[in-house]
Amino acid sequence: MADSLALPIRIEGAQAGNGQVADLVRRVRAGEIRALSRAISTVEDHTGESRELLKALFPYSGNAMLLGLTGSPGAGKSTLVDQLAHHYRRQGKTIGVVAVDPTSPFSGGAILGDRIRMQSHHADPGIFIRSMATRGSLGGLASTTADVATVLDASGRDIVIIETVGVGQDEVDIVRLADVTIVVLVPGMGDDVQTIKAGIMEIADIFVINKADREGAERVEREIRAMQSLAGRKDDWTPPIIKTVASDGTGIPELVAAIEKYQQHLQQNARAQIRRIENWRGRITEMLRDALFQRVLQYYLSEGEAARYAAEVAEHKRDPYSLVEKIVDGLGKPE
Amino acid sequence: MADSLALPIRIEGAQAGNGQVADLVRRVRAGEIRALSRAISTVEDHTGESRELLKALFPYSGNAMLLGLTGSPGAGKSTLVDQLAHHYRRQGKTIGVVAVDPTSPFSGGAILGDRIRMQSHHADPGIFIRSMATRGSLGGLASTTADVATVLDASGRDIVIIETVGVGQDEVDIVRLADVTIVVLVPGMGDDVQTIKAGIMEIADIFVINKADREGAERVEREIRAMQSLAGRKDDWTPPIIKTVASDGTGIPELVAAIEKYQQHLQQNARAQIRRIENWRGRITEMLRDALFQRVLQYYLSEGEAARYAAEVAEHKRDPYSLVEKIVDGLGKPE
Repeated sequence: MADSLALPIRIEGAQAGNGQVADLVRRVRAGEIRALSRAISTVEDHTGESRELLKALFPYSGNAMLLGLTGSPGAGKSTLVDQLAHHYRRQGKTIGVVAVDPTSPFSGGAILGDRIRMQSHHADPGIFIRSMATRGSLGGLASTTADVATVLDASGRDIVIIETVGVGQDEVDIVRLADVTIVVLVPGMGDDVQTIKAGIMEIADIFVINKADREGAERVEREIRAMQSLAGRKDDWTPPIIKTVASDGTGIPELVAAIEKYQQHLQQNARAQIRRIENWRGRITEMLRDALFQRVLQYYLSEGEAARYAAEVAEHKRDPYSLVEKIVDGLGKPE
Repeated sequence: MADSLALPIRIEGAQAGNGQVADLVRRVRAGEIRALSRAISTVEDHTGESRELLKALFPYSGNAMLLGLTGSPGAGKSTLVDQLAHHYRRQGKTIGVVAVDPTSPFSGGAILGDRIRMQSHHADPGIFIRSMATRGSLGGLASTTADVATVLDASGRDIVIIETVGVGQDEVDIVRLADVTIVVLVPGMGDDVQTIKAGIMEIADIFVINKADREGAERVEREIRAMQSLAGRKDDWTPPIIKTVASDGTGIPELVAAIEKYQQHLQQNARAQIRRIENWRGRITEMLRDALFQRVLQYYLSEGEAARYAAEVAEHKRDPYSLVEKIVDGLGKPE
């Protein structure tokens, strides 16, 4: 297993379910931008077609480098992604970006501004950017983001960047699926790292202190070092701390070098494959949870029953613990 | 259904599963603090015993007012909870507090400080405080918090306060189970409400601007008003905005009055029961998801198989979408 590093293999059952899906797959693989957009929309919609499409595209995925980038709101993540994308483009690489925006009624404007700025790439088909809202996502945001990354990967993009705000468990789950995870901090945000969800700091392969020309950059660096001295990693990798000023490109070559160095580290330690296996284990678990639940809704618990049970429990005529036991027992055991 | 507002009814199947559980239930009901602590620990452990305990305690729950309190880190939530608890104690009411702390390596100190301060209540058995960590929680944090609230409710506490940082979906789910939800904001936090998870603002029944003696309180108020003018509520309730300085008790009587007013609104509009039914529907769904997944792990997917599948998918020898379909199909349909 260790050395069979994932070339795309056409596997049984992965053939397109019907002509329409097969045609879309062909066009996505040919690099058609509109087909890519449509494929992603299909995946986001979580229809039966989306599953067929993913089955058909999956064998072509596994070649892109998945780069996860997260950090507090206002850390300049999208500018950083912008600069990284430009840098990789100059090396002749193609880029896909999934930007997960937890838009609040208040921050909506600013984020929209960023995205509009990034549209400047749109003249270059080598950079494809897709924004996803965190709300109203069916079937789990992390899962949908992973599916969208799979589509971009299968379309032949060399690098897929997943950008998200690091404030919730969803976001931790999202960046965890990346090969390389970058956590972006910024000086002078009050309590600094306080607004970062616990768990985000631990998943960083590389730290970036962006807006490093501001006062307080050294303090943030000291805090990261202090944390690193407390909790070492299992794999002999001490996440480097790169200082950037994304708005003028300062530090971007150093960041790209750090990413390369970590990739080399991964390859030398067979960690890349171990990590992908761990990630997939988590994803399969999550997919299974969702699929099971859909199954139960389909066969075992109608909308009407669910409403009636909820009313009975709310009136304390029924206890929910026994109820759940009863429904699950109704599934029976395998023969 | 509408007028049968939940007195505790002893219902079939809710009898304690065994002598030990029955004894614990008796002592919890008698108000023994140590028994309450043990019952909560049992519930947090998610053992078979925890389910039996919850079945036995559930019929006694449903009488407490569930107060949810959430807001950005550093908003002074625990000081506010402290003051509310003192206020209600002076009215002769008993209080239970579940404080959900998403401790990060950096903020741990500050939160611990708050909690130590609150221990001053511990001389008064009328105030019971339980801190829960957000990490390492089995079976879903929101679900466990709800179970702990049920235990406190069943123990006869008049008011159960659930306090959490409003940064992630978990936290939205947690406060959603409350009868009355308070969102705490604070002036001068940079982009103000940016660090609050989208969705938190919408669930507020009451807004509190804490540390209202600081500059910027009016700006926060204007932002809330602007948001309210955009998105009205369905139930003819405009969440009031209460200004407090929790550290010296300013505004606490006004906050208590606002809570009472909202409770009256709920009763007049039969909204309380409708909301409890909606909350229970969500909770039952979540419990069912977890239970189903446990079932599948037990009978359909061994640890070894899960590891092997993950490896095959990571090597792209198997597509995960077909795999999940196969496992779920293996469950069969009901006869």
